[in-house]
Amino acid sequence: MSSSTTFSSSISLERGGCFFKNEVKLLKNRCRNGCNFSVASSRKSLVCNATLKSDQTVRIGVLGASGYTGSEIVRLLANHPHFDITVLTADRKAGQKIGSVFPHLITQNLPEMVAVKDADFSNVDAVFCCLPHGTTQEIIKALPKSLKIVDLSADFRLRDINEYEEWYGQPHRAPDLQKEAVYGLTEILKEEIRNSRLVANPGCYPTSIQLPLVPLIKANLIKTTNIIIDAKSGVSGAGRGAKEANLYTEVAEGIYSYGITKHRHVPEIEQGLSDCAHSKVTVSFTPHLMPMSRGMQSTMYIEMAPGVEVEDLYQELKISYEDKEFVVLLDQGVVPHTRDVRGSNYCFINVFRDRIPGRAIVISVIDNLVKGASGQAVQNLNLMMELPESTGLLYQPLFP
Amino acid sequence: MSSSTTFSSSISLERGGCFFKNEVKLLKNRCRNGCNFSVASSRKSLVCNATLKSDQTVRIGVLGASGYTGSEIVRLLANHPHFDITVLTADRKAGQKIGSVFPHLITQNLPEMVAVKDADFSNVDAVFCCLPHGTTQEIIKALPKSLKIVDLSADFRLRDINEYEEWYGQPHRAPDLQKEAVYGLTEILKEEIRNSRLVANPGCYPTSIQLPLVPLIKANLIKTTNIIIDAKSGVSGAGRGAKEANLYTEVAEGIYSYGITKHRHVPEIEQGLSDCAHSKVTVSFTPHLMPMSRGMQSTMYIEMAPGVEVEDLYQELKISYEDKEFVVLLDQGVVPHTRDVRGSNYCFINVFRDRIPGRAIVISVIDNLVKGASGQAVQNLNLMMELPESTGLLYQPLFP
Amino acid sequence: MSSSTTFSSSISLERGGCFFKNEVKLLKNRCRNGCNFSVASSRKSLVCNATLKSDQTVRIGVLGASGYTGSEIVRLLANHPHFDITVLTADRKAGQKIGSVFPHLITQNLPEMVAVKDADFSNVDAVFCCLPHGTTQEIIKALPKSLKIVDLSADFRLRDINEYEEWYGQPHRAPDLQKEAVYGLTEILKEEIRNSRLVANPGCYPTSIQLPLVPLIKANLIKTTNIIIDAKSGVSGAGRGAKEANLYTEVAEGIYSYGITKHRHVPEIEQGLSDCAHSKVTVSFTPHLMPMSRGMQSTMYIEMAPGVEVEDLYQELKISYEDKEFVVLLDQGVVPHTRDVRGSNYCFINVFRDRIPGRAIVISVIDNLVKGASGQAVQNLNLMMELPESTGLLYQPLFP
Amino acid sequence: MSSSTTFSSSISLERGGCFFKNEVKLLKNRCRNGCNFSVASSRKSLVCNATLKSDQTVRIGVLGASGYTGSEIVRLLANHPHFDITVLTADRKAGQKIGSVFPHLITQNLPEMVAVKDADFSNVDAVFCCLPHGTTQEIIKALPKSLKIVDLSADFRLRDINEYEEWYGQPHRAPDLQKEAVYGLTEILKEEIRNSRLVANPGCYPTSIQLPLVPLIKANLIKTTNIIIDAKSGVSGAGRGAKEANLYTEVAEGIYSYGITKHRHVPEIEQGLSDCAHSKVTVSFTPHLMPMSRGMQSTMYIEMAPGVEVEDLYQELKISYEDKEFVVLLDQGVVPHTRDVRGSNYCFINVFRDRIPGRAIVISVIDNLVKGASGQAVQNLNLMMELPESTGLLYQPLFP
Repeated sequence: MSSSTTFSSSISLERGGCFFKNEVKLLKNRCRNGCNFSVASSRKSLVCNATLKSDQTVRIGVLGASGYTGSEIVRLLANHPHFDITVLTADRKAGQKIGSVFPHLITQNLPEMVAVKDADFSNVDAVFCCLPHGTTQEIIKALPKSLKIVDLSADFRLRDINEYEEWYGQPHRAPDLQKEAVYGLTEILKEEIRNSRLVANPGCYPTSIQLPLVPLIKANLIKTTNIIIDAKSGVSGAGRGAKEANLYTEVAEGIYSYGITKHRHVPEIEQGLSDCAHSKVTVSFTPHLMPMSRGMQSTMYIEMAPGVEVEDLYQELKISYEDKEFVVLLDQGVVPHTRDVRGSNYCFINVFRDRIPGRAIVISVIDNLVKGASGQAVQNLNLMMELPESTGLLYQPLFP
Repeated sequence: MSSSTTFSSSISLERGGCFFKNEVKLLKNRCRNGCNFSVASSRKSLVCNATLKSDQTVRIGVLGASGYTGSEIVRLLANHPHFDITVLTADRKAGQKIGSVFPHLITQNLPEMVAVKDADFSNVDAVFCCLPHGTTQEIIKALPKSLKIVDLSADFRLRDINEYEEWYGQPHRAPDLQKEAVYGLTEILKEEIRNSRLVANPGCYPTSIQLPLVPLIKANLIKTTNIIIDAKSGVSGAGRGAKEANLYTEVAEGIYSYGITKHRHVPEIEQGLSDCAHSKVTVSFTPHLMPMSRGMQSTMYIEMAPGVEVEDLYQELKISYEDKEFVVLLDQGVVPHTRDVRGSNYCFINVFRDRIPGRAIVISVIDNLVKGASGQAVQNLNLMMELPESTGLLYQPLFP
Repeated sequence: MSSSTTFSSSISLERGGCFFKNEVKLLKNRCRNGCNFSVASSRKSLVCNATLKSDQTVRIGVLGASGYTGSEIVRLLANHPHFDITVLTADRKAGQKIGSVFPHLITQNLPEMVAVKDADFSNVDAVFCCLPHGTTQEIIKALPKSLKIVDLSADFRLRDINEYEEWYGQPHRAPDLQKEAVYGLTEILKEEIRNSRLVANPGCYPTSIQLPLVPLIKANLIKTTNIIIDAKSGVSGAGRGAKEANLYTEVAEGIYSYGITKHRHVPEIEQGLSDCAHSKVTVSFTPHLMPMSRGMQSTMYIEMAPGVEVEDLYQELKISYEDKEFVVLLDQGVVPHTRDVRGSNYCFINVFRDRIPGRAIVISVIDNLVKGASGQAVQNLNLMMELPESTGLLYQPLFP
Repeated sequence: MSSSTTFSSSISLERGGCFFKNEVKLLKNRCRNGCNFSVASSRKSLVCNATLKSDQTVRIGVLGASGYTGSEIVRLLANHPHFDITVLTADRKAGQKIGSVFPHLITQNLPEMVAVKDADFSNVDAVFCCLPHGTTQEIIKALPKSLKIVDLSADFRLRDINEYEEWYGQPHRAPDLQKEAVYGLTEILKEEIRNSRLVANPGCYPTSIQLPLVPLIKANLIKTTNIIIDAKSGVSGAGRGAKEANLYTEVAEGIYSYGITKHRHVPEIEQGLSDCAHSKVTVSFTPHLMPMSRGMQSTMYIEMAPGVEVEDLYQELKISYEDKEFVVLLDQGVVPHTRDVRGSNYCFINVFRDRIPGRAIVISVIDNLVKGASGQAVQNLNLMMELPESTGLLYQPLFP
């Protein structure tokens, strides 16, 4: 057990330590594009590296555990080798066990939920903040400065607090924290996230859109003037609040556009794309609500830069993501399906020639609650805690 | 009963005769945009106009009654005042009653299904042909020339038989009939349909796309160079054939694009739009399959002609459809939902400003089996038989 | 038009008058069990019988039009030849058109909704009361005594007002009206309904359960000591109120039992079965909620009386319902599916041998919003207004 | 790493060795009923116990990897610390990668699928056999005798080969193997499974029914004469074969009974219940198909033995399962929901008083593909390989 660190070092693991066994699978997976050495024989040594330090256990607080993103954090962490939940808050469910609010989590042995004002953060190293936008700023302001924070609300995503006020209808209450916050689009901003204390976890739509578009814009392969995005989302994105529009009877067996031109994820998308375009990008963004609890597809209709071919887009995406576990460029011609990432942290993407010359169609799919929310949040905290980003996240998609 | 034809004549009914009571509702509905006379007191006289002729009953054959479009014809005709089914064919179900293949139709008292080769057309005035493309041409060629025909397959939709061969992979076997065929997009080609013997009923996607776009193109309000269409369809469009891809487990809780750039409805859409543009139009068309038995939304992203505003599009659509029962332009800002046309022959449309200046978003929704197939077919045969087009079709949508 | 009343009289229509064309289909349908005369040639005369009286139009008020049962009444009446809606109430939506609350009804030209306290009943002949239980009693007490009333709430279903208080937690506020009320299980209590002023429309579960069991109990074919009912319901039965439990995300892709032993439909079921058993019947009743907007199946596990065979049950049901339009005993061995009655007023039933000797399985399916609520309400008012019970109700089921 | 084995021994782990980190969570979970010692501080040592032997890696073959139970084995094993897939067979997909048949598994780096006849079993220690019944017997007969086998088909579940022939319509072709086979209902037959070479993995219905009923029958708490079982299943139980009945359009938004009295799981259920009753038990069993990809509920209506109360049933189940990870008796009054076990190996159960005196209602829910098939298969092979039964199986349910 103590000896064989050979393999792990030879493939440049991000850090020493005793890795979750899954890490091995990760390594194997990453070889799926060609390399063919066998890892099986080395596994046992890898699983348990003797250099594990006692500070490996990160004590986690989940603020807002009674919503879907909060419960999803709890689900994902159930098998995380280094993150242990020590505090759960839910103001209106204070005093209850998570299993009484989410019976699917009843086998977890976790502390009772408390009101956030009653939470004891002395035994917490990091928090996932799963609260509604607006109230989040004040709460994060009041947290001990020693805590690492991944905020899943929209409160720290927009760098420009005037823009925040414009879209959210209230002044920003923590402008200093805003300056400190790092935008948590993991694959794109990995180094910044690693060194941050407060991460603003991206929205689901912005994640699904920026992952494929950012590399293409950075490489000047597409025009940024007429990006048309037709997105389709499952219902869990709307949360667990009781609203007529989200009743089974209203949603089943139908589809409709909503928030046309004014969905609150627009400024976040445009901020991200403008950053890499070095100029203001305005997108056409039309989300649709459809009968699916989890899942999101963004279908993006773009114009290529002069002389660029679809093959160029494909190669650029291949290079950008070939060493990333969670963003998978499918084989040419293979269409991403939302069902194939359900329950997992994967984003599947591909790019297609359009009938209209000079145009291409980019498709990405994610699980809006995982890569679009809680999974990416865990991925970010892994980095902030100097763990491999996929630690505890290698759940396979659930199909059928 | 005999006397009061006053009201009916004063509002210019399309023809004399004893109308289905629904016609009255139609008239009332058509007043929904402002007029306010009361029709209630006159109704009894309208329902039964004494001039009904004995030739009012049209004897109907349904070829291919064991598929979804065939059974939908049977459902719709159950309450049609002038169409009576006398022949049903289904080669592989010959000898069975419709109720054994479609138990929801078990209360219908209809003739046994026969093989199409055994059908007796001597007591048939008109047929709905619900057969697969390819085989349809030969069968229609062999039908008595006296029959009126509405063909729901793709076999006579493309005027250019070379294009047919290109997309369907086989030469056209009835080019003469092709020349005779009229494209059955009812609201657009009403007069041609009225005078035709053979109608090629449009595909579901082309119906949902052309209804809003044709008036806008005809009025030169939109550019035809970059029409982006993102369409979402229910599963019944794929028919009742047993295919793995259409299993419940494969479709539920997910969405995906299919037939990207090469769906067979593309040439039909482009033919229709090119006709009114007087130049070749190439569209970007990406259909999606989603968990919904019936329903279709087309979200169309368009560039307006210079100087044109979204309000101009709205007004053009208003003028185009204000006297049409089945195409309903919603109030400004109201988003069409597929659920609100389910089971009905309605097409709801609206138009929205885009974030990108100069662009607009056009949305239409239909039930793919009704306005997208069997309902429009009945509407067409109504016209061919000199009946008001809405005869027997005023089913309200089924929600929830 | 004026002459041929021959046919209608020869088949003993319930009353003279100009019938909806559908009535003819009804007659044809009723022959599906063997008789074979042709009705086609006589139809035209039937549709328009000259004896129609001017008092044929019944002016209808719908109280509580903003819920699912209210909107379903509106949908069904859109094609009713004799019922015209003149008043719609919805306290919280007063001032709105029905189309703004239910866009699927936007093509209906109906009066604005008003608060029930502001409704003018001077131009109303009959009301459908679609209000929540509890408040209904006071409102019905205040209505003009000249109105015919079909109440879709639970407020007048239980004859014993003590039982009402026990199950609904409040004393009954209109005991005199309770005495007057007739229980509206149409096929079982047709004559009583015909002569009533106030009908208590049955609950959905009780309808689906009593229709098959009442004839079997009356004929002493089954024991009443161990009736086990496992029922499955669609979500619309819970109404349009925003409740977490009925969100899409909570209901999709799952099933669960609820209200075990204490669902409020229990006393109604037991009242009905006890009446025909002439002794107190206690049932085991377990409803389940499942992902289906409309539909209900009751699977009933029963013990047969000594010497009785399943065939005896089948024959009894056959005799009971062979002349009833809306209760259809399927062919032996054919399993009722909820999908095959969706959107229609039909109840499909059948009976099966059990593996355990002496036991049988009885299955019934309905659309909970139609035969289980609004459709049966229209059926009842038809009778109260001396119309054939199926008038305006012959919608075919919507499948797929 | 080397030192602290104290904790693991003190709580009597089933065997020494380096456990999957999940095992710790298991231990914590098992304390959910009261004990309160803290495990957190000991975890690091537990995860990696130094006694791990080199023979810990079990090389796995999955026969029939192109069906739903086969792909589910692959999904579950992706995070198993000791089972490595070395052979995948799929006759009709030979030469393909699993990711081309099941794109949700595309990130797995697994060997190509081969025809079973071409499989090389020299590098296989154990197989999961996911083939159709009937063909399975011959294939298993031909496998090397050294292999451990978990067979997910029905071929070895019935001890009486005459009964097999009666229900499956063909003689049993491997009666000797039948004698050797152990029925794999894990919690009930743990010791037998541990010592077996060939396990017949139970059907989904039988699993959900026997888990709660077997302890009650063994304890003589319920009568075995009138057990009524109303079961509801998701569609994946029918496999991935293309059948009209399982199309989305046929299944969505509906429910129906099927296989009434003659479902092939009946003899398996009756065999299991008869064994513990020591007399022939005949059950009433009615399965229902409903719109749900995964999930199964069995609602069981039973008569209690004289003098027995529901509380007695509850206590018996509590004692039977309090130390079992995967069978969870919910708190009194809490209703099991299928959604709360989705994707997991858990079976949630509870028992309720009935309205009819002397009767009780027992409810169990499972994921038919996990505890009802592939998960229980892994659980069984864990035992056969002397691993803790929950190894690699502690996936939390996926909700929403």
